[in-house]
Amino acid sequence: MPEDLTQLVTSIAVRARAASLELAVSPTAARNAALADLAGRIERSRGEIDAANGRDLAAARANGLTPAQVDRLTLTPERIAHLAESLRQVAALPDPLGEVLEEATRPNGLRLRKVRVPIGVIGVIFEARPNVTVDCAALCLKSGNASILRGGREIFETNTALASLISQSLGAAGLPRDSVQLVPTTDRAALDILLRLDSHIHCIIPRGGEGLIRFVAENSTIPVIKHYTGVCFVYVDRAADPAMAESIVVNSKVQRPGVCNAAEQILVHADVAGALLPRIGAALAAKGVRLLCDDRAGAILKGAGVASEKASPADFTREFLDLVVAVRVVGALDEAIATINRDGSAHSDAIVTADRPAADRFMAGVDSSAVFWNASTRFNDGFEFGFGAEIGISTDRLHARGPMGLRELCSYKWLVTGTGQIRG
Amino acid sequence: MPEDLTQLVTSIAVRARAASLELAVSPTAARNAALADLAGRIERSRGEIDAANGRDLAAARANGLTPAQVDRLTLTPERIAHLAESLRQVAALPDPLGEVLEEATRPNGLRLRKVRVPIGVIGVIFEARPNVTVDCAALCLKSGNASILRGGREIFETNTALASLISQSLGAAGLPRDSVQLVPTTDRAALDILLRLDSHIHCIIPRGGEGLIRFVAENSTIPVIKHYTGVCFVYVDRAADPAMAESIVVNSKVQRPGVCNAAEQILVHADVAGALLPRIGAALAAKGVRLLCDDRAGAILKGAGVASEKASPADFTREFLDLVVAVRVVGALDEAIATINRDGSAHSDAIVTADRPAADRFMAGVDSSAVFWNASTRFNDGFEFGFGAEIGISTDRLHARGPMGLRELCSYKWLVTGTGQIRG
Repeated sequence: MPEDLTQLVTSIAVRARAASLELAVSPTAARNAALADLAGRIERSRGEIDAANGRDLAAARANGLTPAQVDRLTLTPERIAHLAESLRQVAALPDPLGEVLEEATRPNGLRLRKVRVPIGVIGVIFEARPNVTVDCAALCLKSGNASILRGGREIFETNTALASLISQSLGAAGLPRDSVQLVPTTDRAALDILLRLDSHIHCIIPRGGEGLIRFVAENSTIPVIKHYTGVCFVYVDRAADPAMAESIVVNSKVQRPGVCNAAEQILVHADVAGALLPRIGAALAAKGVRLLCDDRAGAILKGAGVASEKASPADFTREFLDLVVAVRVVGALDEAIATINRDGSAHSDAIVTADRPAADRFMAGVDSSAVFWNASTRFNDGFEFGFGAEIGISTDRLHARGPMGLRELCSYKWLVTGTGQIRG
Repeated sequence: MPEDLTQLVTSIAVRARAASLELAVSPTAARNAALADLAGRIERSRGEIDAANGRDLAAARANGLTPAQVDRLTLTPERIAHLAESLRQVAALPDPLGEVLEEATRPNGLRLRKVRVPIGVIGVIFEARPNVTVDCAALCLKSGNASILRGGREIFETNTALASLISQSLGAAGLPRDSVQLVPTTDRAALDILLRLDSHIHCIIPRGGEGLIRFVAENSTIPVIKHYTGVCFVYVDRAADPAMAESIVVNSKVQRPGVCNAAEQILVHADVAGALLPRIGAALAAKGVRLLCDDRAGAILKGAGVASEKASPADFTREFLDLVVAVRVVGALDEAIATINRDGSAHSDAIVTADRPAADRFMAGVDSSAVFWNASTRFNDGFEFGFGAEIGISTDRLHARGPMGLRELCSYKWLVTGTGQIRG
């Protein structure tokens, strides 16, 4: 490791830790004021942001990025307005800090309180979406955490401009400017150093593709909260209402096919496959969805004149993130549960049924972060759950599972009040 | 990696995962029955256990282990009775599973329930204490988790005998025998393989010295919950009651000096150092505690005729785990808070004071898993907190902080009930 890079990154982490101790006891109003100030500052600084973003876009085009990739880097006026709006929304959310989560008095008179506090210092590692810079900084700040942001090379100029505005807003609100810091280099070695600073940084959140997440999980000595994508199932039970089954399958698949809570796999109970699969298959096909089927599903669809393709075994565990779905016929509820637990990714899975005992069995047996009965898998989302904001959907089982909002960016500590108690 | 070792360890993990899905929906009574059966089985199997333990002890002596090390490996009749008793206690604790932690109905009519569920598969990596084998298996089983136990070479024969009894009790209670598995080799390469099986194992808990924990944290791609030891402080404020200050300092230091929540560092406010330090120092010295002091503390103790030594800078961040304590004088409450946050390990820290605003400021500002006002640091403990059992004291900030009992061995999932809702 280059000596000066190690010093640079370590110094960022040490300053973040110091800032985090101030943030942990900062008034709610100061954190909200910084967020509100930043919203206005971003709106007033369009010229600066556009100039910086323009440099990133020019480099992206020169480097041959596809138009879709360039589009992801672009901060349009609408996106800037959306950033400011979302900052104001985060400012308006209740402060998660200080809530007493549990209280007890022990037989020896000790009074225990378990109180929500920030985690401390959070490292956010992300790729090329500039809104992530502002969103993650805002959520960490609101929850009293210092953040260290490490974004992708393609968006470095934009991030630098945004980080400068964030720093100004922190100063204006009387909060430590080191509360939010951007790693001022995109050198990969800086990331390697960062991921091992476990005495200063308490949590790493990678936001990006599976490759980034895996790299971070394999190289970090700091605890990581992962946001992998999902292999989500909709199971159409034998007691499913036909119209509801069609509607939930179609919505889960096509409403936004590129996201983690979109359905990738359909299971249909054999007793109703003949009646329901043609209807569901035709509805999906009408939306442009390719159907990759097992033999039974393929035969039923063929008999009904709905085009399908034969699935390969790998298709049954695949996350397509596209207008493609794998379809299988299962013989029983328990087979559906076992299939989902074996082939899914424990993310978001749904049953469509009018049979309450079947639904109860499914919800108990399917080991996923969110299990839906008669609702679309697309509802596994912090906003839909009423969190007001989300930093992602955790696919881990420790700390936070499913949508992560402000409370999931917090830890707790125990406050113990005595009158001189000692242990015997 | 040897091919057959990889197969062996992977097969254990795959079978643990399958067992975990059964355990997650197993009746409370079956898990409790297995624990009660194991208590009786251990009591009836003293001969087998003694024979296996005797082989470990003979090898330990042949390998030149110290008498203290051999003692730690020894399962005396009292320790066996204690094991059985603690199994019955865990069986009697309430089932943590199934509790509804939150409930909400969204404006679109979706009903959300956040329900406590097991984590899944937990790998416990430990060293040479045979009680850890049974304790960890019991806590994981009670909380519905499958466990994979990997103990030290020195205790392998004893662990094998205990694992065989556990397997019999699981079978007797109608639970999958793969719910608790011992890695049947102490080959270090098996540990390296285990720590990377992140698609089957959900959490690793290392129980042992700092070297083991660091090795696990650096080599695991599975989330780790660490139980590091503690650099704990007692701060004697200027408004401290003298008798209470003496009693809490002495208890925090000497009641059990070798454990993580014992005090290692004493801070005394300058305004009362002249009056209180001689008394506290003499009380500690009377218990055989060596006092390593800064210049001010040393001068006060010298003036009072209490023997002390000059501390080196490193002593002020050291965990002695022995009858040794570092002593400093501080000028103000805020200096005490900053010193603890800088030099401590965020484990268990106490203030002794009759001044409520000072206590409130200390409890808010000290960033530790448990902060005590007028009570000994030794109370940071799952039993003392009323958890009924503990697997350790987490020094992490994610998932569990401080004492980890049955609830901290659990995750949660979201159950979402609808009437056909789809996202617009």
